[in-house]
Amino acid sequence: MIRFENDYAEGAHRKILQKILETNEEQTPGYGTDVHCENARAFIRKACDTADADIHFLVGGTQTNATVIASILRPHQGIVAAITGHIAIHETGAIEATGHKVLTLPSDDGKIQAEQVQALYAAHWNDAAHEHIVQPGMVYISHPTENGTTYSKAKLEELSAICRKYNLPLFLDGARLGYGLASKNSDLTLVDIARLCDVFYIGGTKVGALFGEAVVIVNDSLKKDFRYLMKQRGGLLAKGRLLGIQFETLFEAGLYEKISYHAVELAMRIRQAFVEKGVSLRYDSMTNQQFPILSKEAITLLSEKYAFSLWEPFNDTHTVVRFCTSWATKKEHVEMLIEDIHKVNLQSVGVPSSQ
Amino acid sequence: MIRFENDYAEGAHRKILQKILETNEEQTPGYGTDVHCENARAFIRKACDTADADIHFLVGGTQTNATVIASILRPHQGIVAAITGHIAIHETGAIEATGHKVLTLPSDDGKIQAEQVQALYAAHWNDAAHEHIVQPGMVYISHPTENGTTYSKAKLEELSAICRKYNLPLFLDGARLGYGLASKNSDLTLVDIARLCDVFYIGGTKVGALFGEAVVIVNDSLKKDFRYLMKQRGGLLAKGRLLGIQFETLFEAGLYEKISYHAVELAMRIRQAFVEKGVSLRYDSMTNQQFPILSKEAITLLSEKYAFSLWEPFNDTHTVVRFCTSWATKKEHVEMLIEDIHKVNLQSVGVPSSQ
Amino acid sequence: MIRFENDYAEGAHRKILQKILETNEEQTPGYGTDVHCENARAFIRKACDTADADIHFLVGGTQTNATVIASILRPHQGIVAAITGHIAIHETGAIEATGHKVLTLPSDDGKIQAEQVQALYAAHWNDAAHEHIVQPGMVYISHPTENGTTYSKAKLEELSAICRKYNLPLFLDGARLGYGLASKNSDLTLVDIARLCDVFYIGGTKVGALFGEAVVIVNDSLKKDFRYLMKQRGGLLAKGRLLGIQFETLFEAGLYEKISYHAVELAMRIRQAFVEKGVSLRYDSMTNQQFPILSKEAITLLSEKYAFSLWEPFNDTHTVVRFCTSWATKKEHVEMLIEDIHKVNLQSVGVPSSQ
Amino acid sequence: MIRFENDYAEGAHRKILQKILETNEEQTPGYGTDVHCENARAFIRKACDTADADIHFLVGGTQTNATVIASILRPHQGIVAAITGHIAIHETGAIEATGHKVLTLPSDDGKIQAEQVQALYAAHWNDAAHEHIVQPGMVYISHPTENGTTYSKAKLEELSAICRKYNLPLFLDGARLGYGLASKNSDLTLVDIARLCDVFYIGGTKVGALFGEAVVIVNDSLKKDFRYLMKQRGGLLAKGRLLGIQFETLFEAGLYEKISYHAVELAMRIRQAFVEKGVSLRYDSMTNQQFPILSKEAITLLSEKYAFSLWEPFNDTHTVVRFCTSWATKKEHVEMLIEDIHKVNLQSVGVPSSQ
Repeated sequence: MIRFENDYAEGAHRKILQKILETNEEQTPGYGTDVHCENARAFIRKACDTADADIHFLVGGTQTNATVIASILRPHQGIVAAITGHIAIHETGAIEATGHKVLTLPSDDGKIQAEQVQALYAAHWNDAAHEHIVQPGMVYISHPTENGTTYSKAKLEELSAICRKYNLPLFLDGARLGYGLASKNSDLTLVDIARLCDVFYIGGTKVGALFGEAVVIVNDSLKKDFRYLMKQRGGLLAKGRLLGIQFETLFEAGLYEKISYHAVELAMRIRQAFVEKGVSLRYDSMTNQQFPILSKEAITLLSEKYAFSLWEPFNDTHTVVRFCTSWATKKEHVEMLIEDIHKVNLQSVGVPSSQ
Repeated sequence: MIRFENDYAEGAHRKILQKILETNEEQTPGYGTDVHCENARAFIRKACDTADADIHFLVGGTQTNATVIASILRPHQGIVAAITGHIAIHETGAIEATGHKVLTLPSDDGKIQAEQVQALYAAHWNDAAHEHIVQPGMVYISHPTENGTTYSKAKLEELSAICRKYNLPLFLDGARLGYGLASKNSDLTLVDIARLCDVFYIGGTKVGALFGEAVVIVNDSLKKDFRYLMKQRGGLLAKGRLLGIQFETLFEAGLYEKISYHAVELAMRIRQAFVEKGVSLRYDSMTNQQFPILSKEAITLLSEKYAFSLWEPFNDTHTVVRFCTSWATKKEHVEMLIEDIHKVNLQSVGVPSSQ
Repeated sequence: MIRFENDYAEGAHRKILQKILETNEEQTPGYGTDVHCENARAFIRKACDTADADIHFLVGGTQTNATVIASILRPHQGIVAAITGHIAIHETGAIEATGHKVLTLPSDDGKIQAEQVQALYAAHWNDAAHEHIVQPGMVYISHPTENGTTYSKAKLEELSAICRKYNLPLFLDGARLGYGLASKNSDLTLVDIARLCDVFYIGGTKVGALFGEAVVIVNDSLKKDFRYLMKQRGGLLAKGRLLGIQFETLFEAGLYEKISYHAVELAMRIRQAFVEKGVSLRYDSMTNQQFPILSKEAITLLSEKYAFSLWEPFNDTHTVVRFCTSWATKKEHVEMLIEDIHKVNLQSVGVPSSQ
Repeated sequence: MIRFENDYAEGAHRKILQKILETNEEQTPGYGTDVHCENARAFIRKACDTADADIHFLVGGTQTNATVIASILRPHQGIVAAITGHIAIHETGAIEATGHKVLTLPSDDGKIQAEQVQALYAAHWNDAAHEHIVQPGMVYISHPTENGTTYSKAKLEELSAICRKYNLPLFLDGARLGYGLASKNSDLTLVDIARLCDVFYIGGTKVGALFGEAVVIVNDSLKKDFRYLMKQRGGLLAKGRLLGIQFETLFEAGLYEKISYHAVELAMRIRQAFVEKGVSLRYDSMTNQQFPILSKEAITLLSEKYAFSLWEPFNDTHTVVRFCTSWATKKEHVEMLIEDIHKVNLQSVGVPSSQ
């Protein structure tokens, strides 16, 4: 079975393992105060062109989302997110468990628009009974989104402008950030993100690391006491060096960028194969996740050799599935898959490949 | 500088790293459902002689404590613990952040007694206004404690009997469990613990692993939906295999036990060196942590070559310090330290070495 | 200005005030343990035909909702409600502040259907990643709803059956329960509600009392330690007698029923006046709230003499407004309003009066 | 049975009931926005000499404490209080339920000292691992305390100075504030309290009202969005006018002060009677609560005619009991009690009457 199920099926990039091995006997202080964490912070600050950003390393995405959000909001405030946002549906209510409502905005593609935030904000403050309603307190987006879609620089600038106008911190979940940055249909850079967001994180778990997310706090007013929040929420890793070592390796010499491009390039080849066969794609993803709409028969046939996810029903006969590539995906596996895509009869449903 | 500061200064036992390396390209399902986790569970169940226990792997101790406690208590209940308990003082209010009060009992040595739990329980239910008071809902102990002290089988049996009588789940924090099991003054075995506690965890972070704690839920009534709680609290590691691999290695062939003995044996040698010099020890620890009471001068002299922790003030002239050994401690470093202990003038304060 | 804005504009029914006055110098024990509370409980049990129900008195609706829900759910569970439910939108995130997500179901009229609950439940448990999703843990409805609509006995029986099948406690918010029971298009009785729900409350604040909601816990498994929860959430009134006295008065001799009928009867006359003028009603309410769709001009004209609420926009020219009657509404005021409705030019929008 | 058990056994001062009666048919907007609330606010601002204070009315003390504290603290912060503080022991963990630890200071008499706060603050920030410890975020005192003791102006000035130096908001729980202001051994005035505290409340429940606490927020930085917090925590009373009317009556013409003096004067007579008989008093209370130390025999004898509380055990033969007076206490009842105190044999334990 060749697996395209997700982007966390393997361990870590061999350079990371090698560095963990090499440094294993070093004695370092705990909780992220070691020299590897310091190195990693310096490399990331440089990559983001933000000399003053605070950088913290956490283990996983749900933990990171809950910690960042709980650190910023007051009790009566909620976080605005797309209805498809990870925090809205796939974290077992981790945000609510910190006491905060997720204020969802409709979205077909996983993204939200500046106008939606503006309208929600206006609706809240125009309501005479606004004190009876959760106050919008910050905004959450992901890039790429859970559907593989990406923000353009222009769109993020609009969103950022509205957020700053209304004093709503803008938080970008970058669990798959590398794959977004490597996408050909997004002109957003890490430097843009650091300029336009108040806080964001750079995902390691899905992009070459064993685990780890690097939180970058750009807005000074959000920096205070963040390490207390990390500890309280179980996110201050005793052997913090492990996080430092991983991000040090990923950001020292462009490894993060390089392996992200690898994954996206292979995903584009899979995409092209489906498109050539007339298969529609549910989301216009130019990142490492592809969402072809397949007939049950096609799914059965492809499932013989390949593992992939059933994403959501499309209609009575067709289902949206997900193929993921990652830093670890082997070129020969993709070539085999493409060959099989061409062999199999993939009934299209006639939906345009770009939404 | 030779470091005896803590037991998490190095990476992991080389066998663990080797196994992580060997399995790196395996494609496994996520979130603790892979074969390595299953193997690790089987080994641990065998070691505990509990065929039916549920076993879950989390990353760190604070996360584990908060997840277990939040899973068990109803909102109006608190958890009983020693005033020195890790959850009471060193987790930035992680337990309170889940909504629960820590009901502290006085303790000089880190342990609590069955009689104390009984008295607290009686006091609560005898109070006419008990509905105005947090209800004791479960009991937390650590073995060894934060002070290196350990429970005897007889004492744990007493505590367990009271807890069962009052239907208070007994939770044992085993962050340093290996060192407790290796202690010569505790006759408690892993099998005893599994028999007497309702839920406990086996610490990996401080005993050979890069990170990881294995929660063992023995009491059937506490098992339901625990994985939801793990996810909600950010403790369901995407690449759960990393936890499985580590505990598989530690429990496949007695490695956990072996490296724990190593650490305790070296700690006993350090202890003996202090005792021979007439230095009093603040806590009667027969585990990997030693707490000599040293004069400021002695501290200054030893600090030239060795790192260790200032634990707590003892009086105007003396301070309690902590020397930790671990699975990673080198025999030659301990020998060097012992030699220096004998050289240095270590003014005793005349406190008996056993409290 | 004659006010039809809401149903809590006046004080309390004069019999209640009289009883408060008469009993003012009685010395009673606090926190709901006095004889008036006991009397009120007995009267309510009789009215509900539930000899074993636990009955508790709280001050207000938001407090009651949060206390009941927090008492029942485990941390990873959410409460299913209509998207228009009071807990979903008008309680400043009180439920989320207890750590729980409100799982919303679409609804045009404020009600939810048994099929919706069934589908949500099935979707949750059919999802392979259900542990990553908030688990449905109980169901919330209101009767009448925020839109004045009501459940029939048949519909509540269906909902109750599904909830019992899936072990989801059914909680009915009866902030305006009296007006629902007095509605001509609902055949539900208090006895039915007590038979079909697991827990519900009888609203006093909007039905004759100064304040107060009587929680009726029918399901034995939900009774334990509820008073602790009340105290923790600030809902255990020191002078609990005030709640006892009010419900004693309301339920001793049918006052609750009588004053509810009064309000609904007057509302029906207002409704008829609008219908006669060809005005459409947004919701098919046969209770004390009426939701005519009025043109801006009509609103301006009626606003000269009457206060009422702007409920929601309907289209560019028309707005849904709300006229409320209550136990305190004066017959002559309603007659004056009806006269004016007939005078004013009330442009209909041609929506059928019943949805 | 004549009751001295507590200070909430009766209803309300007759002037309050009269005003509730008179205004019963007024139609007012809800949630504290009516004219009675506005009047009450103006009277209280005048009494406190704080033209700019925000004033909010809540129903009860536990609700008020939790709302104020949750409004101010960030998640990793705790509130400093005496170990005997109401929030520390008698609110079923209401503060912890908002996510915050109560950081307790030892206290024999219910008060805390500026030096204690200073020491706790210093200890926190001097600890190298302070991020692992709950950060002190505000300070809670009560005046009078749960033991009837009071702060002097000098002591409150010291405490206030330390709190301001460290930017720790000082919160005074005034559940029995009237009785503290009427105490002969405290020179603190309402104006002093408003000058020295950041937020405090004026208790109504125990001082003449049916219920109600008036929160006075003096510090501008703590004012924002407080009404959201009130709503979220179930403390925004629909018929807010009831709170307005009560505080309007209490503060319009000195009624609060007058009835407080009445209670304290009667308490002083009871105190004197015990002292004359050689009975020791456990706490040096010059307020409405008196804590004589009585033998079991004396308790039995006095219990025949009088109800009072068993407060805490003193030794094997004696118990601390509490006699409360209030605004409602009848002079003739006190005279009867004093007569009986003189008749009964009240074995003293030889403890000085002032601690």
